[in-house]
Amino acid sequence: MKLNCDLGESFGNWTMGLDAQVMPYIDQANIACGFHAGDPLIMQKTLELAKQHNVCVGAHPSYPDLVGFGRRSMNCSTEEIIAMVNYQVAAMDGVAKSLGIDISYVKPHGALYNDMMVNNQIRLAILTVLSNYPKKLALMLQATPELAQHRTEARDYGVEIISEAFADRCYLENGKLTPRSEPHAVHNKEKMLAQVQQLTEHGSVMTASGKQLVLDVDSLCVHGDNLAGVQAISEINALINASR
Amino acid sequence: MKLNCDLGESFGNWTMGLDAQVMPYIDQANIACGFHAGDPLIMQKTLELAKQHNVCVGAHPSYPDLVGFGRRSMNCSTEEIIAMVNYQVAAMDGVAKSLGIDISYVKPHGALYNDMMVNNQIRLAILTVLSNYPKKLALMLQATPELAQHRTEARDYGVEIISEAFADRCYLENGKLTPRSEPHAVHNKEKMLAQVQQLTEHGSVMTASGKQLVLDVDSLCVHGDNLAGVQAISEINALINASR
Amino acid sequence: MKLNCDLGESFGNWTMGLDAQVMPYIDQANIACGFHAGDPLIMQKTLELAKQHNVCVGAHPSYPDLVGFGRRSMNCSTEEIIAMVNYQVAAMDGVAKSLGIDISYVKPHGALYNDMMVNNQIRLAILTVLSNYPKKLALMLQATPELAQHRTEARDYGVEIISEAFADRCYLENGKLTPRSEPHAVHNKEKMLAQVQQLTEHGSVMTASGKQLVLDVDSLCVHGDNLAGVQAISEINALINASR
Amino acid sequence: MKLNCDLGESFGNWTMGLDAQVMPYIDQANIACGFHAGDPLIMQKTLELAKQHNVCVGAHPSYPDLVGFGRRSMNCSTEEIIAMVNYQVAAMDGVAKSLGIDISYVKPHGALYNDMMVNNQIRLAILTVLSNYPKKLALMLQATPELAQHRTEARDYGVEIISEAFADRCYLENGKLTPRSEPHAVHNKEKMLAQVQQLTEHGSVMTASGKQLVLDVDSLCVHGDNLAGVQAISEINALINASR
Repeated sequence: MKLNCDLGESFGNWTMGLDAQVMPYIDQANIACGFHAGDPLIMQKTLELAKQHNVCVGAHPSYPDLVGFGRRSMNCSTEEIIAMVNYQVAAMDGVAKSLGIDISYVKPHGALYNDMMVNNQIRLAILTVLSNYPKKLALMLQATPELAQHRTEARDYGVEIISEAFADRCYLENGKLTPRSEPHAVHNKEKMLAQVQQLTEHGSVMTASGKQLVLDVDSLCVHGDNLAGVQAISEINALINASR
Repeated sequence: MKLNCDLGESFGNWTMGLDAQVMPYIDQANIACGFHAGDPLIMQKTLELAKQHNVCVGAHPSYPDLVGFGRRSMNCSTEEIIAMVNYQVAAMDGVAKSLGIDISYVKPHGALYNDMMVNNQIRLAILTVLSNYPKKLALMLQATPELAQHRTEARDYGVEIISEAFADRCYLENGKLTPRSEPHAVHNKEKMLAQVQQLTEHGSVMTASGKQLVLDVDSLCVHGDNLAGVQAISEINALINASR
Repeated sequence: MKLNCDLGESFGNWTMGLDAQVMPYIDQANIACGFHAGDPLIMQKTLELAKQHNVCVGAHPSYPDLVGFGRRSMNCSTEEIIAMVNYQVAAMDGVAKSLGIDISYVKPHGALYNDMMVNNQIRLAILTVLSNYPKKLALMLQATPELAQHRTEARDYGVEIISEAFADRCYLENGKLTPRSEPHAVHNKEKMLAQVQQLTEHGSVMTASGKQLVLDVDSLCVHGDNLAGVQAISEINALINASR
Repeated sequence: MKLNCDLGESFGNWTMGLDAQVMPYIDQANIACGFHAGDPLIMQKTLELAKQHNVCVGAHPSYPDLVGFGRRSMNCSTEEIIAMVNYQVAAMDGVAKSLGIDISYVKPHGALYNDMMVNNQIRLAILTVLSNYPKKLALMLQATPELAQHRTEARDYGVEIISEAFADRCYLENGKLTPRSEPHAVHNKEKMLAQVQQLTEHGSVMTASGKQLVLDVDSLCVHGDNLAGVQAISEINALINASR
């Protein structure tokens, strides 16, 4: 099980995330492409940081919404989604190659990620982009009970799926996350580490209702917004390495 | 001598340029990359149009200034220019490749073009991008008396120069264009065709002061903003083809 | 019954709409505020044009979406909508006052307009802005069977409603517009003029199903995107004036 | 002598400046208007904070350059500058009035501020906006040896000048700031407090060359980007209050 983190989410003079501290502990960096965060210079510097730490790079495309940080769903047409994802993936790929880096996957951001998980048309639009792209790129999406189906669907497009779980989020029995509006939606560190341990050893999580939910997880999503987050990432990293 | 034209300069619901009418008559399409014009969907459609007509594609990067259409010089640092040009070229290259097109050159737009012609640091920044780019891309710039020097300079970066002249602009003896603020800065069609003829036959233009100015021109820049422009392009195209 | 039209929807170098030709024929200009169209300079010039023709001015605020022309619904929070509408109305109001113009109403644009018609929370957010605004501003919305209810609702906020109908759109029995995806959704000129005539004389429209639908209409929305549209506006204007 | 500070310079999800900690210690808040920072919601919240602390509010307009934070000079026309400043001032004024606040001055931001200090045309463009604005607004600019001249110039436009000095910047004999590229351009806290003391008691600063430079200062610009900055502001505030 790998560790992935959203990085490169600063913009111009505004800083977000402790990228330099997080990078040593993760395997996969989802780097913003300029539509919700990450101007060209920040993109380049984040790529250089990933290279320095031998971290895999994925493009992290978004709806075009800087002020909303890509977290507001936008009612875009399929051809708009195809074009905007293609553009962002291409920008990341070419800049990465200029720095001697080969990106290997794409993880949609924020509202586009959520919409992709529930709207087939949007997921197929993204698969279409990856299918037409001149190099193999995997698609990172959420490990749910529909994962096998998503893998089959992607295979038809010649696209590999990287499934991810969330270290710090409580799961419902249907495989969805407990909404943030509800109590206990986000685990404290103790519970988060227990969830990681269970995923590592048993490939499952304990749901809010106390049931075991089996999840086929390739990668674990972690957050490095502050020092406590970085500390937690380093402990998750140690825990996973111990089990390898 | 080839014909090049700025295309793909619509944006969202706003249309600019008669791209579909122009494309059949030109050899090289300078396609906007989203920073002064050309959102992802328009970029894609313009690329498809270029493919359909077998027209060479160049990326047409700009300062980030939609409202000013990239025509206002911005005091950017060298590293900002490198990053923004790299990003735009990469976006164009990757989207083009997804459509089976290989872009072959880069022509900076508007204020960035003008700044590149007078500011060595900016020209070298752009050459640095092309030098580091994972595929060969030529740089299109203005044919001036300094062209030989510019070719030598670019060769050190492993970059080929495509020199261009302007069909409809009056030249000064120093090789610069007569400023638009002065009378006779822009030729009428008759004078424009005469200038093209002279360039084709003698490799020179008649300056505002009536002197012959020798220019080593690989490509001729034309404008297709309206029907008269398209008509003029078709006549220039015929004139050049007749001399081939 | 007055005539209103969306104007000032150019942006930077891109032109949209025949504002100068339309202005003489209308009573109310809905002027874009910069979020879907209309940069500060275009806003100012459109205001000057309205002043010259003694046309009432309304602010025409939108979701922040230039590339989508404000036509894509965005999942914004109530406080975001309040802040963005307040900002746009304030910008229009202050610039107008600098030119000696008093704006008198607000008409939301595109997806924000559509969302306002079906989502009470969004309509109340907009009423909240108008209620707190330091000057009286009416709200323009669609004349539907719910209009009386909308007027009552607005009165609680101290806001007057201007109801509008669409000259060229076919209506359903429930007062909604026939979706553009269906045939006959948009009237030809003959039917449009007949609809205007019926509204003027009888205060009703003929629905797609052939029933009479009574609509209490203060203003008629017309479109001046092209010469045919301008011609139609002039005929509607003549028709309404004849009945006054 | 008053204290002024640039505030409201967060944007969307990105935070900048410790506005809540700074507000209690200052007299004048220069609040970003959305062109270099400060989206509508942040503008509103910063205005509410200023109201709570009875702090005077000034609009802080900028070139349209989010990614460059308004620090890159842009070659805009006079009519573009007039329109963009008018728009930003109007937006701030109207939103402020909706909250029961009367803004009282305008301080251009970043590159627009610097350009205004050296380019008469730009300064006159800004004075033109203020002169046409429907309410009295002062212009805040840098106290230099040309201040008397600037006051006279502004009086012709019916505009009052608020002159400001920089607490933490070293001055040259000509009244300009030591460029940041040079050593000792920015004072440490001890020197800064000494400079404030000297301004308070003698209306002068000690230049880099050790000469006394008389400056007629209405307000002192301070920075609250971090905790050390906030601490320094509280000490400057105490020092000035002690001398009142």
